[in-house]
Amino acid sequence: MPAVDKLLLEEALQDSPQTRSLLSVFEEDAGTLTDYTNQLLQAMQRVYGAQNEMCLATQQLSKQLLAYEKQNFALGKGDEEVISTLHYFSKVVDELNVLHTELAKQLADTMVLPIIQFREKDLTEVSTLKDLFGLASNEHDLSMAKYSRLSKKKENEKVKTEVVKEVAAARRKQHLSSLQYYCALNALQYRKRVAMMEPLLGFAHGQRRKFRCTSSLETSEIQPSESFQRGWITVSWTC
Amino acid sequence: MPAVDKLLLEEALQDSPQTRSLLSVFEEDAGTLTDYTNQLLQAMQRVYGAQNEMCLATQQLSKQLLAYEKQNFALGKGDEEVISTLHYFSKVVDELNVLHTELAKQLADTMVLPIIQFREKDLTEVSTLKDLFGLASNEHDLSMAKYSRLSKKKENEKVKTEVVKEVAAARRKQHLSSLQYYCALNALQYRKRVAMMEPLLGFAHGQRRKFRCTSSLETSEIQPSESFQRGWITVSWTC
Repeated sequence: MPAVDKLLLEEALQDSPQTRSLLSVFEEDAGTLTDYTNQLLQAMQRVYGAQNEMCLATQQLSKQLLAYEKQNFALGKGDEEVISTLHYFSKVVDELNVLHTELAKQLADTMVLPIIQFREKDLTEVSTLKDLFGLASNEHDLSMAKYSRLSKKKENEKVKTEVVKEVAAARRKQHLSSLQYYCALNALQYRKRVAMMEPLLGFAHGQRRKFRCTSSLETSEIQPSESFQRGWITVSWTC
Repeated sequence: MPAVDKLLLEEALQDSPQTRSLLSVFEEDAGTLTDYTNQLLQAMQRVYGAQNEMCLATQQLSKQLLAYEKQNFALGKGDEEVISTLHYFSKVVDELNVLHTELAKQLADTMVLPIIQFREKDLTEVSTLKDLFGLASNEHDLSMAKYSRLSKKKENEKVKTEVVKEVAAARRKQHLSSLQYYCALNALQYRKRVAMMEPLLGFAHGQRRKFRCTSSLETSEIQPSESFQRGWITVSWTC
């Protein structure tokens, strides 16, 4: 664990082997972070998927309860009470469905979205800047090689000046891209802590909000069709 | 909708066309009930499946949060706080997982199981008794046909006595199986009301219990790693 926490921008121009070595440490860290982020995203998407499936399932159950009425039972005696009780339960399931749907939406917005944005914005930015830095480094190496060959031969001054200009331009370009790349890698070190926390706060807040809703839902009396109180079963609750 | 609510056992022996017609109404009703029960069971199994998937998903998320520590990040500066906060969140997710697991178990035991039992016991019993009644009716018809042919010819007394015995035995068998079949169909009319309610009570009780648990969970203070309070984000809740 090196005692450094950022790449120094003033080292970018010199591009020493020490700086390159430190850069590779930051790159390795970013690679590990990318893998971990993908796994975390997968786990969070699974939670969201389960929550979403719960919405669809409660929706189907509610519909199925209402469908009893439309079954055209050949014998319908006493079915009015069953139907009204099933209607009541369907409403309870609907209320639950609203909470599940709200939670699913909240999980999507405050848990899954932030980590997708972290991946698409921060991690992708680092990856793009890495590619650009690689291209600029190659260009710089090529122009330097051209310059080396040039100094051995005895070319005219005009060609020499042009190659020197090319080297200078390539160095400027590499310097600029390394500055951007270093900045992005440094920023990632700060962003990663927040990026891990943000979706979890979203998850926890969503759960808290749901429980608060269901807690207030619970205080209302659940009293389905009082007439449906037979010797067999008595449906009556007080909280 | 006929004004009858049961098949009269005393009509079983005579087995008149009126009784047969009424029987077919009860049979149609049982068929509709079987279809509806299968659809309801499917909807309930979907809710249970979603709840179960939520258990597995929260379990995976909790593990993934703990896995941060084992990533061997090349740069670990400041990770102690991230790790301890992720550990804290992992515990919160674990507590939720316990509730989800308990609810899934309760849904399996008090929602899905009763309706499976209703299908396997009551509906299957009716279906089995229907088959047996059909077989006994056929046997009775065959022995009656034999008897009809007999009365036209002039057979000896011994054969006649035997055929009469056979008819009597077939009629007893058919009578017995029709009594059992009628009883099962009558019982189904009473059972069906309870059978629709029982799993829903299980569902509602499970939800209530979960909310009560989460409601008490909510009153405990959520205060993750106070040291993790940076300029970027402050993790601190009071209920």
